[in-house]
Amino acid sequence: MKKLRICNCQINCHVGDIYGNVEKILSGIDVARENSADIVTFPELAISGYPPEDLLLKPSFISENIKALNKIANNSKDITAIVGFVSQDGCIYNSAAIINNCEIKGVYRKMFLPNYSVFDENRYFTKGDKPGLAFKLNGVTFAVNICEDIWYASGPLMKQALGAGAELIINISSSPFCAEKMKERENMLKARATDNLVMISYTNLVGGQDELVFDGGSMILDHNGDIIARAKRFEEDFLIADLDIEKVARKRLYSPQRKFEKDTPTIDKSDFETIDLICKSGHKSKKISMRIEEPEGEIEEIYNALCLGIKDYVGKNGFKKVVIGLSGGIDSALTAALAVGALGADSVIGVTMPSRYSSQETKSDAEIVAKNLGIKFITIPINNLFKEYLSSLQEVFRDKPADVTEENIQARIRGNILMALSNKFGCLVLSTGNKSELSVGYCTLYGDMAGGFSVLKDVYKTIVYKLADFINEKAGNELIPKSTIKREPTAELSPNQKDSDTLPPYDVLDGILNQYIELDLSVEEIVGKGFDKEQVKRVVKMVDINEYKRRQAAPGVKITQKAFGKDRRMPITNHAV
Amino acid sequence: MKKLRICNCQINCHVGDIYGNVEKILSGIDVARENSADIVTFPELAISGYPPEDLLLKPSFISENIKALNKIANNSKDITAIVGFVSQDGCIYNSAAIINNCEIKGVYRKMFLPNYSVFDENRYFTKGDKPGLAFKLNGVTFAVNICEDIWYASGPLMKQALGAGAELIINISSSPFCAEKMKERENMLKARATDNLVMISYTNLVGGQDELVFDGGSMILDHNGDIIARAKRFEEDFLIADLDIEKVARKRLYSPQRKFEKDTPTIDKSDFETIDLICKSGHKSKKISMRIEEPEGEIEEIYNALCLGIKDYVGKNGFKKVVIGLSGGIDSALTAALAVGALGADSVIGVTMPSRYSSQETKSDAEIVAKNLGIKFITIPINNLFKEYLSSLQEVFRDKPADVTEENIQARIRGNILMALSNKFGCLVLSTGNKSELSVGYCTLYGDMAGGFSVLKDVYKTIVYKLADFINEKAGNELIPKSTIKREPTAELSPNQKDSDTLPPYDVLDGILNQYIELDLSVEEIVGKGFDKEQVKRVVKMVDINEYKRRQAAPGVKITQKAFGKDRRMPITNHAV
Repeated sequence: MKKLRICNCQINCHVGDIYGNVEKILSGIDVARENSADIVTFPELAISGYPPEDLLLKPSFISENIKALNKIANNSKDITAIVGFVSQDGCIYNSAAIINNCEIKGVYRKMFLPNYSVFDENRYFTKGDKPGLAFKLNGVTFAVNICEDIWYASGPLMKQALGAGAELIINISSSPFCAEKMKERENMLKARATDNLVMISYTNLVGGQDELVFDGGSMILDHNGDIIARAKRFEEDFLIADLDIEKVARKRLYSPQRKFEKDTPTIDKSDFETIDLICKSGHKSKKISMRIEEPEGEIEEIYNALCLGIKDYVGKNGFKKVVIGLSGGIDSALTAALAVGALGADSVIGVTMPSRYSSQETKSDAEIVAKNLGIKFITIPINNLFKEYLSSLQEVFRDKPADVTEENIQARIRGNILMALSNKFGCLVLSTGNKSELSVGYCTLYGDMAGGFSVLKDVYKTIVYKLADFINEKAGNELIPKSTIKREPTAELSPNQKDSDTLPPYDVLDGILNQYIELDLSVEEIVGKGFDKEQVKRVVKMVDINEYKRRQAAPGVKITQKAFGKDRRMPITNHAV
Repeated sequence: MKKLRICNCQINCHVGDIYGNVEKILSGIDVARENSADIVTFPELAISGYPPEDLLLKPSFISENIKALNKIANNSKDITAIVGFVSQDGCIYNSAAIINNCEIKGVYRKMFLPNYSVFDENRYFTKGDKPGLAFKLNGVTFAVNICEDIWYASGPLMKQALGAGAELIINISSSPFCAEKMKERENMLKARATDNLVMISYTNLVGGQDELVFDGGSMILDHNGDIIARAKRFEEDFLIADLDIEKVARKRLYSPQRKFEKDTPTIDKSDFETIDLICKSGHKSKKISMRIEEPEGEIEEIYNALCLGIKDYVGKNGFKKVVIGLSGGIDSALTAALAVGALGADSVIGVTMPSRYSSQETKSDAEIVAKNLGIKFITIPINNLFKEYLSSLQEVFRDKPADVTEENIQARIRGNILMALSNKFGCLVLSTGNKSELSVGYCTLYGDMAGGFSVLKDVYKTIVYKLADFINEKAGNELIPKSTIKREPTAELSPNQKDSDTLPPYDVLDGILNQYIELDLSVEEIVGKGFDKEQVKRVVKMVDINEYKRRQAAPGVKITQKAFGKDRRMPITNHAV
């Protein structure tokens, strides 16, 4: 009987930490062995972590990664392991090793290298030029491909299925999160499985890495396109499934589509060689029940992505605590709630830094948020400092009227205080600005933008409100006070200031920003969608002229189709404005 | 007689400013026409500016650029113009239009797309798959290629010369500066000319664009590999030359190498079509003398690159003045001198912000530098502000001993003051840290790193000294006082502080940094070059753990083989440390 048991190891690899990753991989092999799996799989570039960026330009890094692969091979007795690593032969390749019973039996080289959005794989890798080898294990023919490869209908998967007769396709991925990406992946995998009559094992990376969160959600589909097992998202998980490949062969035998496609001349069977593997696991006596984890809702998945992003940025960079400036507004309250969700209340310090323009309500809301979340709360008033700056600058400023300068001085005093706390106590500053503000430059460089990680960098204000509601619902009480959610947004840097003095209402603003940033539409095209022309022109101009601020912003988690950072590479000096 | 007059228009294009660039191109055509040139050439992507980065993802930007090309074509009566633009047919291509007497006669698509170092051309462009058309003008066969194309010995140039019989190759480039790049370009062009017996017209972009300076130095080589005309560097220039192509044909007739290569089967002549162009200029009656501008010395070209980088970043972003914190040390003195070289003394403001740790000598040196350079000089002491911070933080810090926190507070007070001056008077802050400091994190985020442009970002401390000497020599007097150059480097943020308390001597440090950053060597390899192991390990670790600071640094001009910024893309979260 053509049966296999597979274990997808959805691990959290650390970029650069080759030997730490080897340890995780070896533990995964142990789990697979304990469960009598025939095959154990790991994410794309599991040995180096993903994306390793310019570490790949260091020859010593590549040779360490190959040593590490050999160590893994030596520890793969009686099992077949699929491990992502960097292979080389003059050039370097994004590769998967197919290891069987301590021997590296084959290496597959990724053929489709993504070089758009946040990806730069052409910068480093040469693309593979063949769909590669096929393997026979316990009577089952399988083939391997890597991440982007599987997104193309006429890509290597089709060739492996038709040319080599692969019944099982193992794809190893490091596919980053953005909202609704999971649904896209599922639909694509279903199409591949049904079109090619293959079972698919899809193993994704999990974990935060700078601007990216890899959301896991590894899965296994049968040849009908049904998901028969699905791992958790946003945490490490081991997904074990029994695959009855006999059924694939039976269905294929009479498939008219398959007959038609087999006759197409695009597939060159001589491109393939099938290598026999040793199968020793003998799992047939035991039984396992297969898990299908339920997917999250739209806001819940964003919440989870942000928490994992915070947790891993803080933890992987060696910090134990974070410090957040609490203004009494919704952005900082949300940031604190997310930090508590990610790290626990004991790891979060809230600091309120009231000025002469802070209202009694916001001061009290800051304190209530801290109390509700159970975090440490510090008050450091900035009025005397502000006065001292005004007096130091009095002679130079002379009779110039107050303007945005004085607002920025206050924001930068707060930035300096937060950084001083960071320096003295070794905690990371989380900055609190949202994507709407950062888009139009409604924020102070070195002021409220100061910090090691910018939690809401890719979260529009309209989503900020939804996340606040979600958190309160989840908690079953008002963690973030309704007064904070309902208050008209204000920076409180000058008397009676309101965001709406300067910006369109946030629902309008976010609508324009989405069209301009995510969809790259022109002013005319956005106006065509029903927005006011003058407003669109003003917003677009604000976005363009504030690129210099964003270039100096802290990293934050990508959650939209197009985040600031390496996902959107705009010139600062830009006369298209 | 096969003769042509060519005019290479080395213009300073502005990224995004399509219609401004069109104006410059039309003026260049006028200059060429006034000088009876047959052909006029412009840099790569002259219409969009280079690099346009993600502006290329906006369909409206592409269609504007095509409208602009048509406008240029309509204004090209009686001349042949080679114009860099973005062509499209479903995908987009980095292209050159060959315009003759108001008609677009052909479009060449760049075949070699650079995607390393600062380049991301695979992100946007599809590569051309044919060396393209050849053209016949006044009996001369010529062909066109673009920048990177000409760097490959077996690239399109060889095919154009052998397959289409091109006697003149026109390459349009946007090749950015780094030290000694000019020599590399010359050597490469000489090899292409002699190997293929072609004359070469090489037109390069000039101007600063964010991290890059394009240094011009356009040139024309004959078929013997001799430079017969060379333009200025670091400024706009029009280079006009008479080409006697008759000589090329004569030399080719009896060339044994050529005969050998013509027989090679790698060239498919059917790939080429030769298009006849109309020649109307009739320049034969006049005579011109051809210019060969002398190249600069090693330090002079760096000086010129930095000045152009400052001038264009400041000017193209709409600023008239800059403000610089003058500490009395060499870095800020050099930055001020460069700013004066770029913008003139009236556009530069020096600010000294002495603290309790500032010595009498540095205070006086700051003033002397300002006086020598003839710039406005402001003094704003920070002692009271520093005291106020200490008092505001006293309760939170309690009995914690003073450490780097107190040093950073002072640096950030200065950052806040400089930014306040920037906000109030609309001038750009130039930050003054050098590459050695930035490499090892010997700098304060939001403190001395605050600013819109980081002049010495890619200038090692050892080069800082050479630049200071060069400036004094050039001025014929001590613009930068010898006491400033000779003083042992100190940040003056705590009592009797010296850089050498924390860092190896700068010549050792820069040696290690060069091996690690530019050459990507491992610790073992660097130690193998004769450096102390513990010192190398310490320096490498400092470089790695300070990536987060550099990620939030202002842009600065690339002058080395590998600059920080988009030239070196390291993960922040990096366990290779």
